[in-house]
Amino acid sequence: MSNVKESWKSIEGGVAAPKGFYAVGVQAGIKYEDKYDVALVFSQVQAQAAGVYTRNVVKAHPLHLTQSHLKNGLAQAIVINSGNANACVGKAGDQAALSMAQVVAMFMAVPAEDVLVASTGVIGVEMPIDRVLTGIRAASAELLGNMVKGIREPKETSNDGAHRAALAIMTTDTAVKERACELSCQGGVITLGGMAKGSGMIHPNMGTMLGFLTTDANIAAEELQRILREAVDESFNMVTVDGDTSTNDMVLFLANGASGMTLSGEDLFNFEKMVKSLCVQLAQDIVRDGEGASKFMEVTVSGAKTKEAARKIAKSICGSSLVKTALFGEDANWGRIFTAAGYAGAEFDPGLVDIFLGDLIVAQAGIGVAFSEEKAKEILSLRDVHIRLNLHLGEEHATAWGCDLTHEYVTINGSYRS
Amino acid sequence: MSNVKESWKSIEGGVAAPKGFYAVGVQAGIKYEDKYDVALVFSQVQAQAAGVYTRNVVKAHPLHLTQSHLKNGLAQAIVINSGNANACVGKAGDQAALSMAQVVAMFMAVPAEDVLVASTGVIGVEMPIDRVLTGIRAASAELLGNMVKGIREPKETSNDGAHRAALAIMTTDTAVKERACELSCQGGVITLGGMAKGSGMIHPNMGTMLGFLTTDANIAAEELQRILREAVDESFNMVTVDGDTSTNDMVLFLANGASGMTLSGEDLFNFEKMVKSLCVQLAQDIVRDGEGASKFMEVTVSGAKTKEAARKIAKSICGSSLVKTALFGEDANWGRIFTAAGYAGAEFDPGLVDIFLGDLIVAQAGIGVAFSEEKAKEILSLRDVHIRLNLHLGEEHATAWGCDLTHEYVTINGSYRS
Repeated sequence: MSNVKESWKSIEGGVAAPKGFYAVGVQAGIKYEDKYDVALVFSQVQAQAAGVYTRNVVKAHPLHLTQSHLKNGLAQAIVINSGNANACVGKAGDQAALSMAQVVAMFMAVPAEDVLVASTGVIGVEMPIDRVLTGIRAASAELLGNMVKGIREPKETSNDGAHRAALAIMTTDTAVKERACELSCQGGVITLGGMAKGSGMIHPNMGTMLGFLTTDANIAAEELQRILREAVDESFNMVTVDGDTSTNDMVLFLANGASGMTLSGEDLFNFEKMVKSLCVQLAQDIVRDGEGASKFMEVTVSGAKTKEAARKIAKSICGSSLVKTALFGEDANWGRIFTAAGYAGAEFDPGLVDIFLGDLIVAQAGIGVAFSEEKAKEILSLRDVHIRLNLHLGEEHATAWGCDLTHEYVTINGSYRS
Repeated sequence: MSNVKESWKSIEGGVAAPKGFYAVGVQAGIKYEDKYDVALVFSQVQAQAAGVYTRNVVKAHPLHLTQSHLKNGLAQAIVINSGNANACVGKAGDQAALSMAQVVAMFMAVPAEDVLVASTGVIGVEMPIDRVLTGIRAASAELLGNMVKGIREPKETSNDGAHRAALAIMTTDTAVKERACELSCQGGVITLGGMAKGSGMIHPNMGTMLGFLTTDANIAAEELQRILREAVDESFNMVTVDGDTSTNDMVLFLANGASGMTLSGEDLFNFEKMVKSLCVQLAQDIVRDGEGASKFMEVTVSGAKTKEAARKIAKSICGSSLVKTALFGEDANWGRIFTAAGYAGAEFDPGLVDIFLGDLIVAQAGIGVAFSEEKAKEILSLRDVHIRLNLHLGEEHATAWGCDLTHEYVTINGSYRS
């Protein structure tokens, strides 16, 4: 497995990069400004499909619909709107989500049960459903036209529909998040594409996080679900804490088999690695776009007795407002790091813990060591800061990602709804 | 019990208000500026004592010492320093805590085991122990002098030692937190005093929270422990979330019996109510002094199946950075309130929940209702905002307190250590 790192490579594009996938984004007027706000992702054939969802007790209307439509592990289209979360509005919300699926189904000539629906935006306000459906009709018509003409993007034309789709799922995001990569297998090339949205990063998990993955590999829904679950656990879930999720979070994965290849053995192993890697890239894109964030932090906890303990501690540190403000202030306040580890809900022996800022050790065996404040300042002044803890208890490790807490964050979130 | 509310009244003073208690605060030069930083609380006789402590895995050195000294339920003095947490510095930290107790013991002629120690400040930096001990000697000498002269404060002199003690336990606190009250019983008057510190309020629990209570009632340590535990659960723990605590948090309670009265029946019942009320007052004082806070929020969750569920949901809402920034922005974004309830880790039926801002209902049976934005703005523009949720599932309820998240918070915490 020495060539694991070289078995796949990043390429241009997003969800329409794999064979047989199409995507468009349109402006439906749901958001205040003239911005893209309806996205449609479509596979030319029915695809195997998997999904992971928010664990919030309060679930948005489209989430219920999508879960129900995914029961058979099959789907052909995903329709997404931004600007309104379609959450907590009662029967009208269920009806709105269903209508969105039905309009796609009608235009694209697929069963409504094969259409998945996702929304993101303000909670508790009824959808401007007329505008949403008009947008979906426009998106469907454009996508249908592209299919008839055999136009896939972005590689084949300058009319970058997939990029517009990635723009259309954004809310407070300031940067588009799309990724694609290729895996060379025995039988040829497998392509993987993805896009994501999310930026409410102080409690990483509270801003809605959406992710959509596509591949032209042939993978049964059950296998796809396992691969997605594992990838999400080490990527999106390390910025969006389990159990601390918004009402609308979901990650969906379609595999349409258009490459003609079914993976096994080392190819499957490498494919899983590639999916995990792409999810980590998208998760990092989300963190880097944290609301008002000026710095990026990667927290690695090693030497843990269990994976779960390592994950809890890494996430607790990334989520600590006092660690985040110290990062913003470029203050080597490792006591806050240690404190956040201590209340993570995982047992460890404080007397064994080493703490590093970059390569600089700041605490050894649970005790502060004399370190160069100048060196610490230098490390903390970088845009990317790596914090490491070694618990010296076992072999398990985990990595979480976060950003700093800034004045800008307060400004953005003090006036998001209005 | 119709006169429960009138059975006690607030009076001037703090920890030295009950009979037989003395307190002083001195400037020992631990903090950068010329501020009070060593406090000594003393009972003229050995007192029954109780304590509750942080649940953080990482515990400061004085905490271990105090727990050990409190095993027999007896204590006569509490010594506290601010400016240094005496945490995570190894054997030197244990020795520093012990030395603090020993110096008090020597001056005040009590066993070192009857001296309790608390610290607050920066973590991982060795105590400037010479300055601390010099401060303790000065405090002991002054207190001893007052005792000999029979001077108790603040009621009997203008030399307000208890007030200086309350000043000496502050870190980023901007206001002193001391309270006292009197209960009229069958045999006479029982007095209760208290002081507290804490203000790191974004994750309420991460800034160290200290509380010290004194009473001249005669109560056995076991009973005192139960009363303190119950009072803390409904007060300090509703701003300092269980399991999410700093390395140094503790609340101590001394009962010296100097009133000559042992409480029972209705008197005991009223005393417990008074202790709870004083703890709630101090907890609210802490929240109102939240770092950079401009608004105060009280969140009441009713209609819960269990007390635990009500507590979790109320605390989750108070701790949500998105709720806190919405409060700062005076934005009636009840979706964020509902979302924070949803990830609290308590089960409920979202379709039954009513949400109120003040008296204004903003969601009914889990669905947003049309409400006057003008009225909402008016409610949110007040300094005190009351958020209420009714889960319509049972009879249990709980109240938590929090504050908004402001630019000022980021400024304070970006530069606390340095």
